[in-house]
Amino acid sequence: MRDVAVIGAGMTKFGKFLDRSLKDLTREAVQEALDSAGTEKAKLQVAVVGNATAGLITGQEMIRGQVVLRDIGIGGLPVINTENACASSSTAFHLAWMYVASGMYDVALAVGMEKLYHEDKRRSFQAIGAAVDVEWVEQMAAAAKAAREAQGDGERQPTFEEGAGEKRSMFMDFYAAFARQHMQRYGTTKEQFGRVAVKNHYHGSLNPHAQYREVYTLEDILNSPVVAEPLTRLMCSPIGDGAAAAVLVPADQARQYSSKPVFVRASVLVSGADRAPDEPGTTERAVGQAYDMAGLGPEDLNVIELHDASAPAELVIYEELGLCPPGEGGKLIDSGFTKLGGPLPVNTSGGLISKGHPIGATGVAQIYEIYKQLRGEAGDRQVEGARVGLTENGGGMVKGDAAALSVHIFSL
Amino acid sequence: MRDVAVIGAGMTKFGKFLDRSLKDLTREAVQEALDSAGTEKAKLQVAVVGNATAGLITGQEMIRGQVVLRDIGIGGLPVINTENACASSSTAFHLAWMYVASGMYDVALAVGMEKLYHEDKRRSFQAIGAAVDVEWVEQMAAAAKAAREAQGDGERQPTFEEGAGEKRSMFMDFYAAFARQHMQRYGTTKEQFGRVAVKNHYHGSLNPHAQYREVYTLEDILNSPVVAEPLTRLMCSPIGDGAAAAVLVPADQARQYSSKPVFVRASVLVSGADRAPDEPGTTERAVGQAYDMAGLGPEDLNVIELHDASAPAELVIYEELGLCPPGEGGKLIDSGFTKLGGPLPVNTSGGLISKGHPIGATGVAQIYEIYKQLRGEAGDRQVEGARVGLTENGGGMVKGDAAALSVHIFSL
Repeated sequence: MRDVAVIGAGMTKFGKFLDRSLKDLTREAVQEALDSAGTEKAKLQVAVVGNATAGLITGQEMIRGQVVLRDIGIGGLPVINTENACASSSTAFHLAWMYVASGMYDVALAVGMEKLYHEDKRRSFQAIGAAVDVEWVEQMAAAAKAAREAQGDGERQPTFEEGAGEKRSMFMDFYAAFARQHMQRYGTTKEQFGRVAVKNHYHGSLNPHAQYREVYTLEDILNSPVVAEPLTRLMCSPIGDGAAAAVLVPADQARQYSSKPVFVRASVLVSGADRAPDEPGTTERAVGQAYDMAGLGPEDLNVIELHDASAPAELVIYEELGLCPPGEGGKLIDSGFTKLGGPLPVNTSGGLISKGHPIGATGVAQIYEIYKQLRGEAGDRQVEGARVGLTENGGGMVKGDAAALSVHIFSL
Repeated sequence: MRDVAVIGAGMTKFGKFLDRSLKDLTREAVQEALDSAGTEKAKLQVAVVGNATAGLITGQEMIRGQVVLRDIGIGGLPVINTENACASSSTAFHLAWMYVASGMYDVALAVGMEKLYHEDKRRSFQAIGAAVDVEWVEQMAAAAKAAREAQGDGERQPTFEEGAGEKRSMFMDFYAAFARQHMQRYGTTKEQFGRVAVKNHYHGSLNPHAQYREVYTLEDILNSPVVAEPLTRLMCSPIGDGAAAAVLVPADQARQYSSKPVFVRASVLVSGADRAPDEPGTTERAVGQAYDMAGLGPEDLNVIELHDASAPAELVIYEELGLCPPGEGGKLIDSGFTKLGGPLPVNTSGGLISKGHPIGATGVAQIYEIYKQLRGEAGDRQVEGARVGLTENGGGMVKGDAAALSVHIFSL
């Protein structure tokens, strides 16, 4: 297989854009990617488009990519429409990478696009709820209800029937349960989760594409409304709209287009699996494969974008990436290691919490940030001398495991 | 890139299975494919899953493949969820082919699965309606209504507001308009369309997997209820449920598994494009690329499965495949050339009209038929001595062009 380079990337600002269509958002991201690549629409040979919820939000299923790309003036080429929940567009990028790595095509476009806002916000949360096994959720909700009734209610945490999928994404309940487990097992504190949010909101304040650009104190974070204990609103990624795009070519052709290509060192996608308790989880498995593929380890990384759909997730992913031993994610955030100016800044874009999380757009938007960082184009949030970056993007849930987990490693 | 072989294929019967889940249907197809391949779940290294309407029919979006495959006991491996309307699973097959051809993985699973029946049949037709640009359809319906009102109604054909997307798939209106154009331009007759249906229903009567197994006379076909002039019900593919699967490995490893592998000679996917009237259409473009890739032409083919979503489509595709000159599809069906026993049997499975058309399952089911034919396992519908077969699978529509069009060529 051939080595592959990213020669262009673009993205819209993330936010609430009820008056902008997927076509409109995607046009902007694709045009920026093409401009950055110094190439044009007619040169594209294949396009892979990631989207998660258009079917449920706009009614557009099946040929989402073609509908949008023909409108932009891109046609004829193979168009792959792919879904993998929050990892939809890292999956799209992975396929675009493979089209080029295989030798089949020389210029590939990867797109992530999402309109998650709906006039009726319950529709947005319901749509996110399709990222799990919908049959299983129905069964679990029924079982939880029966158990509560049998136990006379008792002390309890918010459950599916009380807002999940209606007033908030049901994923926040998963994350909250996960966070409580980490606190109990390792002594991690709510303040430590809060510090992740402080950091990412600070980073987002430096990013013109971020949905939220406010700086918050730890008190602000902890005192914001509780979503599901211990998560507060400012620790959670918001609903959002946006698009991102990247252009990929063979590494040995990259300098024909760009004086500063960004090389793909690893592209890994895995799914959850049944496993013994001592076997590595989904993220560790993907990360291990990616380090092997790149011939690099955590000590080589200069900048990371990871899937902080909620603040506790970031701490756990530190551990899964091997940035610290298991259980010590809390200490790592306390140390300032992952803040801009620290040894290994994480989520310099603001992450999902602050930059926003239009779910199908997130994967390529993470790659956009690494592309900008490695090229030295990240402005106020630039990591000086960044040469190697990693993205980690998880999507959906089946049987308690991530349904899809992708890791990419890039270098100059 | 490496040559690739199909070493196993499986499919369910197509039909109305309100009591069977996607998990249940897919389990059956995958198990047959693995058994046919002489391999097992644990050996699979990547899975690509095509589905078109689960999001709208069952509410399951984003991670449809993982939900189904984990239930079957397949996990850990990369799972790609892909959509391309009626070409969803030929797209899945194309990606599985590329994973193997690229050298990345050695054992790939391609799955097509669909439950299109819904207790409320309007939901089925509405779901199919998501295979076009939904914004464009709204605009077109409004324009058609305004035009009719301005013209005082006059002589007219059924239009979008009168049943399309409610009482029938709106695609039948497209096909009807297309058929009338062919009649006007080339003198093609309704009887010739009828003969396609007679042939395919006869073929389907010989196929245990077919949804409909009745033999019909030309009079039966012409006298069945009108869907949209000139299409009668027996000329149209039905709503259906079903699943199909195939296992792919590198050609040079194929004989480790199978004494009779079927080799992939071409795998092509294209999308519609703006073009001048004299430039080749979407199908011709894909077919031309496939013949080039395979180093074969229409004269080399022994058996074909093509996308007869309605009978007129089959005649037009004869011309696009180069089986006859433009406009002579009608003469070709009259001659018996494409009937079992003729020189080049087409849609020996019964095609979409008789075998059925659970849209996301159709692409891999076409490949299943060619796999069985080339291996000499097609029973009563066997094409003697078949060594080279082609599948053509179209999906969706944007600006009057097929949104996705895939062509595969296989040989012993």
